Amino acid sequence: MSGVYIGIDIGGTNMRLGLVDGAGRVLKLERAKTASAEGYGAIIKKLAKGVSALVSYASEEGHTLGGVGIGVPGIVSPQEGVVRFSPNLPGWVDAPLRESVSVFSPVPVFVDNDANAYAMGEATFGAGAGIDSFLCLTLGTGVGGGVILNRRIWRGADGMAGEAGHMTVEPRGPKCHCGNSGCLERYSSATGVVERTLLALSRDRKSTLRDEYDRDPAAITAEAVSRAAEEGDRLARDVFSDAGRYLGIVSAGIINLLNMDSIVIGGGLSAAWELLIGPLEKEISARAFDIPARRCKVQRGALGDNAGILGAASLAAASGAQ
Amino acid sequence: MSGVYIGIDIGGTNMRLGLVDGAGRVLKLERAKTASAEGYGAIIKKLAKGVSALVSYASEEGHTLGGVGIGVPGIVSPQEGVVRFSPNLPGWVDAPLRESVSVFSPVPVFVDNDANAYAMGEATFGAGAGIDSFLCLTLGTGVGGGVILNRRIWRGADGMAGEAGHMTVEPRGPKCHCGNSGCLERYSSATGVVERTLLALSRDRKSTLRDEYDRDPAAITAEAVSRAAEEGDRLARDVFSDAGRYLGIVSAGIINLLNMDSIVIGGGLSAAWELLIGPLEKEISARAFDIPARRCKVQRGALGDNAGILGAASLAAASGAQ
Repeated sequence: MSGVYIGIDIGGTNMRLGLVDGAGRVLKLERAKTASAEGYGAIIKKLAKGVSALVSYASEEGHTLGGVGIGVPGIVSPQEGVVRFSPNLPGWVDAPLRESVSVFSPVPVFVDNDANAYAMGEATFGAGAGIDSFLCLTLGTGVGGGVILNRRIWRGADGMAGEAGHMTVEPRGPKCHCGNSGCLERYSSATGVVERTLLALSRDRKSTLRDEYDRDPAAITAEAVSRAAEEGDRLARDVFSDAGRYLGIVSAGIINLLNMDSIVIGGGLSAAWELLIGPLEKEISARAFDIPARRCKVQRGALGDNAGILGAASLAAASGAQ
Repeated sequence: MSGVYIGIDIGGTNMRLGLVDGAGRVLKLERAKTASAEGYGAIIKKLAKGVSALVSYASEEGHTLGGVGIGVPGIVSPQEGVVRFSPNLPGWVDAPLRESVSVFSPVPVFVDNDANAYAMGEATFGAGAGIDSFLCLTLGTGVGGGVILNRRIWRGADGMAGEAGHMTVEPRGPKCHCGNSGCLERYSSATGVVERTLLALSRDRKSTLRDEYDRDPAAITAEAVSRAAEEGDRLARDVFSDAGRYLGIVSAGIINLLNMDSIVIGGGLSAAWELLIGPLEKEISARAFDIPARRCKVQRGALGDNAGILGAASLAAASGAQ
């Protein structure tokens, strides 16, 4: 891989655009707001401005630009370059993002959902570099997933593969917004951690979070629970232990099914790594077959704050390499 | 694919060898016993005799022999052609099966475990023909599995992928011989059906199986339970409904993870299709995302009684085609 790529991370509040080199360094960064309901057209205009700035910079610095990659939350058709639906971007229904950006981009444009982009980013620049097959999990508001097989993303028949967050871990567990009950996401996402904590507090369990809860239940964030857990609060520790345990149960099942080399875990909630990894690995060794369990290295994602940009850039980098 | 292949199905009691044409017809069949603890060497001698008979027949009939495929229960390294361990074949530890058979085979020899062979058989000659990606489940003594992606078997890093029968469906479910608790196999295999029935009978649940149970609990077979269910016995119906339900829960999870085209279900217990398919499909539509759930066609395996031979033959046929 030579040259540079533009990686664009579009979220419901902000978008971030970065010029990324072949080693995964962000050479230049642009930002813009996506919120305040400006609609698709307004966001495309901001994209045009940001892309132009990065294209100019690349040219001034003598870099060869290889492509533009864009990661978007939601249901995306990478083949058609269309965003079918995005929960975070109102009005983006069948939005022809690749076509729109191709109008002002001098290089090919690649679009995928943010979880796939993140997985490709870890494969290209991060913890998955040099690894043939891995499951990537992002513990954020929800639990996102990406499946890398033979160093390529497995997208499935409709481009919808990777939804490990909506595999059932408790058949009679809490209802999920996806329609299922007992999804992994209900236990092991930031939202899940908050839900489980609020449930326990509503049942009068003792906790150092009690005062905060009594003042304002909405103040109970995943960060607050993680802080309480680190300070030894029993309830908070149990919630994180369950989050790790259920991650381990799903991981063990996927290890038995796919016998992959690694599991890479990123996203905001993975900051609580020390609270999660013990219960997670315990379930894997209790539940998966020995040989595949020993093979599968559980790793923390390595992309850090620029994960979104690096993931998006890797879409272009990987396509260019094929 | 042209010419013919030899498919060999080695089980703990019998082995069956078949000459198979490109359309999946068995042109000639040979059988031999594997039981009575004759050891590896004695079985290889029987294999030599059977293979020679089929090679001669193929030559007399003017067929071009493309290869020999062998399916063996247990842990197999297809790359090395070695049977690491087989629960049904005592003494087969690191058995160099490909090498042993290559001594007398005039054509290349391919070895894999029986579940992978079965999945390849369905892909080549059966319900998976023409389909890019599917999960294959065999409901026999245990629940075997094979994952076909891009028309090839996904073997994983150690050749141990496909163990869908040992994915957890009930975190606090019954102990499995694999070491895990609440595996799919504990509910949806012939053994699982018998276990669940015996458990319910031991708890004094009413059933038409009661007399048989009181005379001899060992007389309760999966066939007996399936017969009772077909005749309307409530307990037996519940056991099969649970078997289908748990198949559906695991299937829904894998659909969300892999977004594959189909699930193909074979094996002895799949004879009770009408008892299983309703609860199974209900869980898929309740638990998987709409688009991948609608995409994924649940099909009965199409290979019938010769599944083992056809699966083994397909190992050679598929390798020849690559």
